[in-house]
Amino acid sequence: MTDYGTTFAAWRAAAGDHWPAYTHHAFVEGLCDGILPRKAFLDYLVQDYLFLIHFSRAWALAVTKADTVDEMRLAAGTVNALINDEIALHIRTCAAAGLSESDLFEAQEKPQNIAYTRYVLDAGHAGDFLDLLAALAPCVMGYGEIGVRLASQKTSDTYADWIATYAGADYQQLCHDVGGLIDAAVARRLGDAPAASPRWSHLCHRFRTATRLEVGFWDMGLEG
Amino acid sequence: MTDYGTTFAAWRAAAGDHWPAYTHHAFVEGLCDGILPRKAFLDYLVQDYLFLIHFSRAWALAVTKADTVDEMRLAAGTVNALINDEIALHIRTCAAAGLSESDLFEAQEKPQNIAYTRYVLDAGHAGDFLDLLAALAPCVMGYGEIGVRLASQKTSDTYADWIATYAGADYQQLCHDVGGLIDAAVARRLGDAPAASPRWSHLCHRFRTATRLEVGFWDMGLEG
Amino acid sequence: MTDYGTTFAAWRAAAGDHWPAYTHHAFVEGLCDGILPRKAFLDYLVQDYLFLIHFSRAWALAVTKADTVDEMRLAAGTVNALINDEIALHIRTCAAAGLSESDLFEAQEKPQNIAYTRYVLDAGHAGDFLDLLAALAPCVMGYGEIGVRLASQKTSDTYADWIATYAGADYQQLCHDVGGLIDAAVARRLGDAPAASPRWSHLCHRFRTATRLEVGFWDMGLEG
Amino acid sequence: MTDYGTTFAAWRAAAGDHWPAYTHHAFVEGLCDGILPRKAFLDYLVQDYLFLIHFSRAWALAVTKADTVDEMRLAAGTVNALINDEIALHIRTCAAAGLSESDLFEAQEKPQNIAYTRYVLDAGHAGDFLDLLAALAPCVMGYGEIGVRLASQKTSDTYADWIATYAGADYQQLCHDVGGLIDAAVARRLGDAPAASPRWSHLCHRFRTATRLEVGFWDMGLEG
Repeated sequence: MTDYGTTFAAWRAAAGDHWPAYTHHAFVEGLCDGILPRKAFLDYLVQDYLFLIHFSRAWALAVTKADTVDEMRLAAGTVNALINDEIALHIRTCAAAGLSESDLFEAQEKPQNIAYTRYVLDAGHAGDFLDLLAALAPCVMGYGEIGVRLASQKTSDTYADWIATYAGADYQQLCHDVGGLIDAAVARRLGDAPAASPRWSHLCHRFRTATRLEVGFWDMGLEG
Repeated sequence: MTDYGTTFAAWRAAAGDHWPAYTHHAFVEGLCDGILPRKAFLDYLVQDYLFLIHFSRAWALAVTKADTVDEMRLAAGTVNALINDEIALHIRTCAAAGLSESDLFEAQEKPQNIAYTRYVLDAGHAGDFLDLLAALAPCVMGYGEIGVRLASQKTSDTYADWIATYAGADYQQLCHDVGGLIDAAVARRLGDAPAASPRWSHLCHRFRTATRLEVGFWDMGLEG
Repeated sequence: MTDYGTTFAAWRAAAGDHWPAYTHHAFVEGLCDGILPRKAFLDYLVQDYLFLIHFSRAWALAVTKADTVDEMRLAAGTVNALINDEIALHIRTCAAAGLSESDLFEAQEKPQNIAYTRYVLDAGHAGDFLDLLAALAPCVMGYGEIGVRLASQKTSDTYADWIATYAGADYQQLCHDVGGLIDAAVARRLGDAPAASPRWSHLCHRFRTATRLEVGFWDMGLEG
Repeated sequence: MTDYGTTFAAWRAAAGDHWPAYTHHAFVEGLCDGILPRKAFLDYLVQDYLFLIHFSRAWALAVTKADTVDEMRLAAGTVNALINDEIALHIRTCAAAGLSESDLFEAQEKPQNIAYTRYVLDAGHAGDFLDLLAALAPCVMGYGEIGVRLASQKTSDTYADWIATYAGADYQQLCHDVGGLIDAAVARRLGDAPAASPRWSHLCHRFRTATRLEVGFWDMGLEG
C-alpha cells in the first residue's frame, strides 16, 4: 500500500469499507482493463475539469487558513499544480475529442460533483485548516493510490495517459508532500497523541464523508 | 400564483421547467393527497432537520454580507425563525415517531442534502449578498408556494400539519419579507434595470441551480 | 472579580497587563467620575455603533462555525441582542444629541475601530469556532467587568445610563451565557486539560491581541 | 503618471488627497533621499513581512472568489509572486541585519498593520471579487507608482535595493497585469459604464479606505 504519512493511514483505516468502495470502484476497474466506454470517460473528464476548478479554490482557501509560512507555501504550490498542470491533461484530452476549454467551463455541473466540491469548501469555512485537509485528502491521496495500482495492474493501454498522470513522479511527490503537510499540521494543533483529542473523531468523519462523496462521483461517471 | 416580489417572479420564470419540476414534484403531490408513505415522510423530515441547520448557517452568513442594518436585521430574524420556529415542527413530528433531537442531529446527511446546502453556502462565500439570496430564494419561496397550493387542493389530512406550517401566516409573512429584501437588495446593487446588468444571467443561474438541487432533494425523499 | 467561567479567567490571566490597561483605561475612569468630556463620549458612541455592526457580523459568523445546535442558538441569540438591544442605547443617546441612525451609519470608521472588528472577523475565517470566541471574549466580558465595577464605584451620574446598560441583569446574563458557551466549546474541542493542548497558547494570543486592540479603541475615544 | 488601467485611474482620482498623502508620504521621501533612519526601515520591513503574509492570504481568497479560470490563474500567480519573490527582499535584507525569518514571523503585529490587512480580507468576505480587488489595488499599484518615481528621483542609494524591487520589470509587469485583471473583472460584472452602477461609489469607498490605511502604515513606520 502506498505510504503518504501516518495521519492519512489512520484516516483511511477509519473510513472502513468506504475507502475500497472508492479506490476499487467499477469506474476505476474500467480504466484498468480499458472496458470503460469512451463516452463515459469524456463525460467524467468534463465533470472532473469543473471539479478541479473548485478543488483549486479549496486549496486556495487553505492558504488563507494556514498557520505557518511553510503551510502557506505548500498549499499555494498545490493550487498552482492543479490549475496549471493537472488540469492540462483534461484540456488536452478533451481537445482531442473536440471539446474546447470554454465548452468545459460552460458544462453543467452534476449534483454529485457539486456535493463533493462544496462539501470540501464548507469544511474549510466551518472549521479550521485540519477540517479542510481532512476533506481534501481523499481526493489527493486516493488518486495517488489508484494511479500506482493501475500502473502495475493495467491490462489495456486505452487509459494509459490518465494512469500515467497519477502514477507519475510529479503526482506521487504531491501526495507525499501533502501527507507530510497533514502530519505536521496535526502535530502542530493536536500534539503527539492526536487520536486522543476530542477532535479526532470529527476529522475522521470529515475524511469518511468526503470518501463517500468520491464514490458518488464515480457512480456519476458510470451513469454517463 | 403567489406574489413574493418582482425579482422572485423574474428568477422563477428564468428557471423554466425546473420550477414546476420542484413545486409539483411527486413527493409534493403525495403530501397533497396523503399517499406519501409515512416512512418516506419521516426520512425526509430527518434530512430536512439537517437541511435547516445548514440553511440557518447560510442565513447567518447573509448577516455577515449585508450592506445595511435593515438587511442585517431581516437576515438575523430569519436565522432565528428557522432555528427556533420552523425546526420545531420537525422536532415535534419526529418526537411523536420516537426520534429524539439528538437522533436527528446524528443522522447521516445524504449526498443530495449536502449538495444543496453546501451549494448555497458556497454561493455566499464565492459571491456577494445577491449571489447568496439567489441561492436561498428557491427554498424559502418554493415552500411558500407549495404550502398555499396544497392548503387549497389537499384531498387528505394526513400531512395537514406540514401543509399548515408553510401555508400559515407566519411563513407567508416570511416569504413576503424575504421577497421585499431581495427586491431592495437588487435595487441597491444593480439599479432600476437589473436585468440589463451583466450579473443578471449569473443570478438567474444561481437560482436555477438551487432549484435543480431542490428537485434532487425531493427525489431523495422518494428513494427513502 | 466577576466570574464568567474558567476559560475566561485563564485567558484574562494570560493577557497580563493588557487586561487592566483595557478595563481601567483613562476613558473608563472618566466614565466613572464623570469627567469624560461629552464630545469624547459622543464620538465614542458613534464609533461604537459602527463597532456593534461589525461585532454582530462576527457573532453571525460564529453561527456558521458552530458544531452543535446549542452553540448555534446562543450565537444567534447574541446577534439579536446586539443588533436590536445593545445598539438601542447608542441610537437613543445619539438621537438626544441630534444624531440620526443614518448619521451613525454614514460616519467614517477610524483605523483603531477597523483594526479591532476586522481582526475578530478574520480570527473566525482563519481558524475555527474557538479562535473566533477567543477574539470576541475581551469585548463581551470586559464591558461586563467594567459595568459591574463602575456601578459600585461611580462618583457621578453623568454616564449612569451607559454604566447601567453593562451592569444590568440582561448584559450580565449575556456574559455568563457566553462564558458557559466558551467553557463548553473548549471542553468539546480540547478535552479536559485544554491548557495542555498545543492550541492553548494560540488562543491566549488571540485573546491578548484583541485586548490590545480594545486599549487602542479607548485611546481613540480620548483622541476625539 | 503610471498607467495601470482605466479603473485604477478612476479609483485613484476618487481617492482625492488620500492618494498623494500615501504615495508622497514623509516615509517615502525618506527612502528617496536616504534620510530615513535605518532602524525605522528595519522596523518597517518586519511589519511589511507580516503584511505580505496576510496580503498573500487576501490574494488566495481572490482565487476562491474568481468567476473565470483567467481570474483564478492571475490571482494564483500573484500569491506565488508575493510569498516566494517579493518576500525574499524582506528576508534577505533582514538577514543582513541579523533577523531570521522566524524572528520576522514571531514579531508582534502593530495595530495599523492589523487594520489594513484585515480590512482587505474582510472586504473579500463581505463582498465579491470586485470589493476585494478595490481593497487590494492601493497597495499593489501604489508601490508600483512609488517605485517608478523614486527610481528617477532618488538622491541617495541607501534604499536602492528596495526601490529597484518595486521599479523593476517584474513588479511593474505585476501592476499592469493586475490593472488588466481589474478592468476585465469590472467589465464582466458592471458592464461598459461601470461608473453608472450603484456599486461604483462603494468600490471607490473601498479603495479610498484602503488608501487611508496605507497612510497609517507609513505613519507607523515613522513612529518606529
